[in-house]
Amino acid sequence: MNKTIRELGISIGFTPTGRWNKITDVPGVSVGHYTLNNRDIQTGVTAILPHQGNVFQEKLIASSHIINGFGKTAGTIQMKELGMLETPIVLTNTLSIGAAFDALVDYSLEKNSTIGRTTGTVNPIIGECNDMYLNDIRKQAVQKEHVSYALENTEIDFEEGAVGAGRGMLCYSLKGGIGSSSRVIKLSHGDYSIGVLTLTNFGKLSDLRVDGIPIGRKLRDHIALEEKEKDRGSVMIIVATDLPVSDRQLNRILKRSVTGLSRTGSIIGNGSGEIVLGFSTATRIPHEQAPSPLSIPAIHEEEIDVAFRAVGEATEEAVIESLLQAEPVTGRDGHTRPTLTELLQKYKQIL
Amino acid sequence: MNKTIRELGISIGFTPTGRWNKITDVPGVSVGHYTLNNRDIQTGVTAILPHQGNVFQEKLIASSHIINGFGKTAGTIQMKELGMLETPIVLTNTLSIGAAFDALVDYSLEKNSTIGRTTGTVNPIIGECNDMYLNDIRKQAVQKEHVSYALENTEIDFEEGAVGAGRGMLCYSLKGGIGSSSRVIKLSHGDYSIGVLTLTNFGKLSDLRVDGIPIGRKLRDHIALEEKEKDRGSVMIIVATDLPVSDRQLNRILKRSVTGLSRTGSIIGNGSGEIVLGFSTATRIPHEQAPSPLSIPAIHEEEIDVAFRAVGEATEEAVIESLLQAEPVTGRDGHTRPTLTELLQKYKQIL
Amino acid sequence: MNKTIRELGISIGFTPTGRWNKITDVPGVSVGHYTLNNRDIQTGVTAILPHQGNVFQEKLIASSHIINGFGKTAGTIQMKELGMLETPIVLTNTLSIGAAFDALVDYSLEKNSTIGRTTGTVNPIIGECNDMYLNDIRKQAVQKEHVSYALENTEIDFEEGAVGAGRGMLCYSLKGGIGSSSRVIKLSHGDYSIGVLTLTNFGKLSDLRVDGIPIGRKLRDHIALEEKEKDRGSVMIIVATDLPVSDRQLNRILKRSVTGLSRTGSIIGNGSGEIVLGFSTATRIPHEQAPSPLSIPAIHEEEIDVAFRAVGEATEEAVIESLLQAEPVTGRDGHTRPTLTELLQKYKQIL
Amino acid sequence: MNKTIRELGISIGFTPTGRWNKITDVPGVSVGHYTLNNRDIQTGVTAILPHQGNVFQEKLIASSHIINGFGKTAGTIQMKELGMLETPIVLTNTLSIGAAFDALVDYSLEKNSTIGRTTGTVNPIIGECNDMYLNDIRKQAVQKEHVSYALENTEIDFEEGAVGAGRGMLCYSLKGGIGSSSRVIKLSHGDYSIGVLTLTNFGKLSDLRVDGIPIGRKLRDHIALEEKEKDRGSVMIIVATDLPVSDRQLNRILKRSVTGLSRTGSIIGNGSGEIVLGFSTATRIPHEQAPSPLSIPAIHEEEIDVAFRAVGEATEEAVIESLLQAEPVTGRDGHTRPTLTELLQKYKQIL
Repeated sequence: MNKTIRELGISIGFTPTGRWNKITDVPGVSVGHYTLNNRDIQTGVTAILPHQGNVFQEKLIASSHIINGFGKTAGTIQMKELGMLETPIVLTNTLSIGAAFDALVDYSLEKNSTIGRTTGTVNPIIGECNDMYLNDIRKQAVQKEHVSYALENTEIDFEEGAVGAGRGMLCYSLKGGIGSSSRVIKLSHGDYSIGVLTLTNFGKLSDLRVDGIPIGRKLRDHIALEEKEKDRGSVMIIVATDLPVSDRQLNRILKRSVTGLSRTGSIIGNGSGEIVLGFSTATRIPHEQAPSPLSIPAIHEEEIDVAFRAVGEATEEAVIESLLQAEPVTGRDGHTRPTLTELLQKYKQIL
Repeated sequence: MNKTIRELGISIGFTPTGRWNKITDVPGVSVGHYTLNNRDIQTGVTAILPHQGNVFQEKLIASSHIINGFGKTAGTIQMKELGMLETPIVLTNTLSIGAAFDALVDYSLEKNSTIGRTTGTVNPIIGECNDMYLNDIRKQAVQKEHVSYALENTEIDFEEGAVGAGRGMLCYSLKGGIGSSSRVIKLSHGDYSIGVLTLTNFGKLSDLRVDGIPIGRKLRDHIALEEKEKDRGSVMIIVATDLPVSDRQLNRILKRSVTGLSRTGSIIGNGSGEIVLGFSTATRIPHEQAPSPLSIPAIHEEEIDVAFRAVGEATEEAVIESLLQAEPVTGRDGHTRPTLTELLQKYKQIL
Repeated sequence: MNKTIRELGISIGFTPTGRWNKITDVPGVSVGHYTLNNRDIQTGVTAILPHQGNVFQEKLIASSHIINGFGKTAGTIQMKELGMLETPIVLTNTLSIGAAFDALVDYSLEKNSTIGRTTGTVNPIIGECNDMYLNDIRKQAVQKEHVSYALENTEIDFEEGAVGAGRGMLCYSLKGGIGSSSRVIKLSHGDYSIGVLTLTNFGKLSDLRVDGIPIGRKLRDHIALEEKEKDRGSVMIIVATDLPVSDRQLNRILKRSVTGLSRTGSIIGNGSGEIVLGFSTATRIPHEQAPSPLSIPAIHEEEIDVAFRAVGEATEEAVIESLLQAEPVTGRDGHTRPTLTELLQKYKQIL
Repeated sequence: MNKTIRELGISIGFTPTGRWNKITDVPGVSVGHYTLNNRDIQTGVTAILPHQGNVFQEKLIASSHIINGFGKTAGTIQMKELGMLETPIVLTNTLSIGAAFDALVDYSLEKNSTIGRTTGTVNPIIGECNDMYLNDIRKQAVQKEHVSYALENTEIDFEEGAVGAGRGMLCYSLKGGIGSSSRVIKLSHGDYSIGVLTLTNFGKLSDLRVDGIPIGRKLRDHIALEEKEKDRGSVMIIVATDLPVSDRQLNRILKRSVTGLSRTGSIIGNGSGEIVLGFSTATRIPHEQAPSPLSIPAIHEEEIDVAFRAVGEATEEAVIESLLQAEPVTGRDGHTRPTLTELLQKYKQIL
């Protein structure tokens, strides 16, 4: 594993991290990857399980926020209408949403014999970025089985960088991919975790900042990097928390991820679909109706600022980790990009 | 009082009404009017108290829905962000929003010495329609004191028709104004009320339908009515309920008011600002933060259909009542419009 | 072909229809079906081509509107962000979105060798309803090839009723499916068409109204129909026009389809995903950037009311046609539903 | 005038500024202030004229974006629905919206005798922040006449800092107020300006960053500043441009202002209403309908990234200027806050 930003001596923000400094610091959350690495095929799948039970039967309060809608994320309409998540979240490349959809349907049908019989259908949640520079995306190499593998092989201490859905992604003209971070927030009624996982695939090198330091501008003085002309990327931001919140409150928290994203240098480019998906594990909403009303625990609105701060900090750090943890990848037509770690080693003085 | 639609033998929908068949069937809700009736000045104010306590200190879960945004309703941004109502709702004519704003600020400051000192400000909610045909709206005749009067003189069995904010309004080219209706819905855990108050000021006669019967088309065959060329009106729909719902669920209920509106014949014309404001009295959210999380009771989503049906039916009936209860008004430049009640008496055979 | 509502003597609304009284009255629009009819498999695909050229290269101004988001429609995020449509629209059953996604990707890749190479990806638009009562939806019987067939075999005078995606759908407890209608609107600068295609799968019999007449309530007195307990359906509404409009104006037009839907009796039930997708053929937006700014023709906002009226009328008529044109279907577990046409023949006096 | 950030040697971003480096670099835009400075009354009004003609008769394409809706901004509902601005924009304190509303109505009625007679009403646009710390906001000291003065006394080279609506505002626990900046962007078809004006009233000192440098953290080591416990502020961001854009495109541009805001350190706190209002002067939409369709010039979506970058940079710089240009103010109960300029002079080494 490469050094983390903290091991390089930089702490992002003011709030303490969780044990793993990953989204899996939220109890019950686990993450699985399937990576395709075969010449022109540099792509994959990342799956996030929101809890270890049957998510269709025990739904979670959930929300989404669209920073820039130039993206094809599936399932957000219903998630917004009902404020609930009823499947794991799958990330993959843009043209493999069909395979991911089929896999999540299979996954849900298998676990729930009532779907399509005595109850309705299921709403798969799929996020995507376009990895066409390193991956031959036209080949639609991701198969249903790859998605199932990622769903069935999740862990707490999961890998970051050029793995899973992050395999072929670029970020700030460098190698991007999967990055994660977490924060622990203290309220009068307890401690709670907020975890963020990002799939990063956006930005130009000259914009990159690490904790405010204009690393990108400095690197540009040292290296001649042919940049992508246009930002055709995306970033997917997955937010998990065990904070008791309503879907409206959760949505407010999701919206604050843009502060961290911006602090890494993003201009939220036209071609970069930037979408935030989040859930709270604090309440499980049963699929079946009960005889009495539900009781939804929720923080008072005046307590929410610590969560706003935490999600911005964790997003900022997750983006930086996606860069630092990425290993070099050579893909379609021999395309490759430097990694931040190798550049920081070569140009030590700039950090 | 004129005959109601039920006294004329027509029941709108399938769901039973509450005792008063008014928004005030929701316990705690009361309505007050101030009517200005002086030649060219035919306008007024209608105030809805959501409960009889201090609404700033004990806020209610609330939401709004914009059917057509050609309107100037104040306060919806914050109501959507926080999902809460913290003042009474005031309705008046379009150019009197300033007076209503000032009056609601005074009302709130007087009852809450902490505002602007140890706590923040207050978010007044004001809806409006344009009564320029009957009222000289350019004179901005509504004063702060008129609004205060309406706020301080509310009742359960309030008047409907050409009163309060409804004084100068037109609907389906006839005299419109204030109309109200309610429904009682039965769930496994109890009976609940949904009440609707409409301020009607939209539509063309030929479109008017009463319980599906094309009354407007039939009346057009009998009378030569110079219609307004363009729909420059609005409709404000206020929905109250004691159903335990989250703000998201409440928003879904508010959205269904359009079914009733449509069944009276509305095409939701360009110039007609159509806005729905609603609140649930089931939960009071304290202004001050408590040491433990809130607990918000909420129905299961699968129970919500009875509320969807009820709000559509009550909206349909409230619009019809606003027409039936309206008395003739002669206003600016001698303008006047027939009332539905007088037309139905004259052309008895058409209903 | 069964009798249309007009052949039964009823004209919906005031605006004249186009030649075919179908969505294809908008020049360039064509519709194709693929129907699966094999015992428990009663489902299919309906494809709408917005114009006969390369839609990816020559995009259309487009918008969507969510009446009720309990649905899985794909592609709306980007359509809203960019206000453009760049693929045909495909309708199918809920669990076959994956197949439809793959087919639309193939369709677009084949016609555009630059996708995933020198330009970005493509945004497939897919609508769905749940046909589980008549169709064994768990079998995911729709294949990529079925979608391709529908895309490649479109016509102007297409079939309505229990065909294509409408094969297994129910509406108002009767057999539903595909229905279409159109209107011609006259403005000072020309005549324009607005066409609507609906995929109907919602509602309870007792609510059904035809031009205001409570047919459903009357039929309930005659027949003992075991109704679905819960509305687990949906309605997809596709709107086409050649009116020059901005995406904002188009969105306003789409929103008015709910007036027609409501007039057929809909309460917009919880489980019924109701989504409107629309496009204007008046302007083609080139995929590639030109040296000078675009010039977007658009009507003045004050002209828009005729379009508002037209889309409501065409939606109302399209829903009724989906009922009238449906043939009897027996599907999964021998399930079947009466058709409106057979009921109207049996109980002639009620219309 | 205090030194600007550029005079202190720091250039924000990559894009060149306009001549004045103010919102008034967009031709036609002018800004006026009225400042109330009398012991406990430290408040005022700032008015932005979008062009020098009759804005009601010649409307501009406009949009708004809500970063955080804990605010009372008036007029956004209609601006979103119609995509147009028809009055100047007025900024003031939260409880003075009523006075601003009345003044904008008077302003519009006086210039347009048709309002409320042969045409409809008018939609005043008013933004606000809560200046209760320095100003006795409960006194509602702003009068209609003060607003009229600001509207009638606008200039190109207007003052920044603790003037107009900015008089009583705080930002990052320091004295805030009015700040402005602009950028010039080059497209193949011409050069265009984007200007931003901010009314700043948000944030905690420890979060403040200037071009990435954590000034706030450094200052906290030097001074013992009693901070506000909670962020009860707001920021209003006004964006002007002469770029030819649709209201949808303009909305996308407005959304990017959050990148600049975030880079100054904002966490978008709960109590901080953060709202962006913007307009393009490229197209004037006549109030009266013409015989032929409008033609709206608009950039190709692929050209929009330079505008995204520019608005973020200008917002970042405008916030910093609001701090730098602010003079010391002592207000209600002797409250006062340091200015950034005096702190930078005292602790020179930190920048």
